[in-house]
Amino acid sequence: MYDFYGELLSEKQRIVVDCYYNDNFSLGEIAEKVNISRQGVYDSLKRAEELLREYDSKLKLMEKYKVNKELLKKAIENLKHYDGNKPDILDEVKEDLEQLLKQL
Amino acid sequence: MYDFYGELLSEKQRIVVDCYYNDNFSLGEIAEKVNISRQGVYDSLKRAEELLREYDSKLKLMEKYKVNKELLKKAIENLKHYDGNKPDILDEVKEDLEQLLKQL
Repeated sequence: MYDFYGELLSEKQRIVVDCYYNDNFSLGEIAEKVNISRQGVYDSLKRAEELLREYDSKLKLMEKYKVNKELLKKAIENLKHYDGNKPDILDEVKEDLEQLLKQL
Repeated sequence: MYDFYGELLSEKQRIVVDCYYNDNFSLGEIAEKVNISRQGVYDSLKRAEELLREYDSKLKLMEKYKVNKELLKKAIENLKHYDGNKPDILDEVKEDLEQLLKQL
C-alpha cells in the first residue's frame, strides 16, 4: 500500500514507515534516528497504517492494479503463443485490450 | 481530477463540486441546497479544488492514465490493422504491452 499511497503521507510518516517496513529498523532505532520518543514512533506508524488503509478503501488502486495486470499479462501471453494459425487468439487479445482500456 | 480523487474529499465537498461542475448550479443554488452560506459554498469549493490539485501533484494518476491510454490505444489500432503479412506489427504490439505492464 505504501508504494501506491506513500506520497499522501507526511514526510515524518514516510520516514517511519520506510525505516520500519523496508529497512527493518526497530522502534527504538527509528526513535533515535528521527529524534522523537519510541511511543511517538509507534503512534506515527499506527496513524500512517490507518491512513494507507483509508486511502486504499477509497481509491482502490491496488485492486485495480491487480485486475489490470492479470488482464494485460494474459493478452501478452496470448500474443506470444500466436503462430498465425489461430485468428481467434488475436480476437481474444483485442477484446481483452478493449476491456483494459475501459477500466484503466 | 474529480473523477480520479473525488473519493478523497469529504461528503460536503463532493456535493458542492458535483453541483457546481457537473450540474452547473450557481453558488446561491448550492447554498440553498446544502443549507450553508454562499460564502461557505465558495470556501468549500476553493478548498476542494486545492485538495484535488494537491492529490494530483502527489499521485499523478491523471498523467499516468493519459500516457497508458495512448499506449494501449496504439496497440489496439495496430492489432486491428494486422493482416498476417506484417509480423513486425505484432512485435511492436508486444513491446508496447510489455512497456504498459511496467508502468501500470
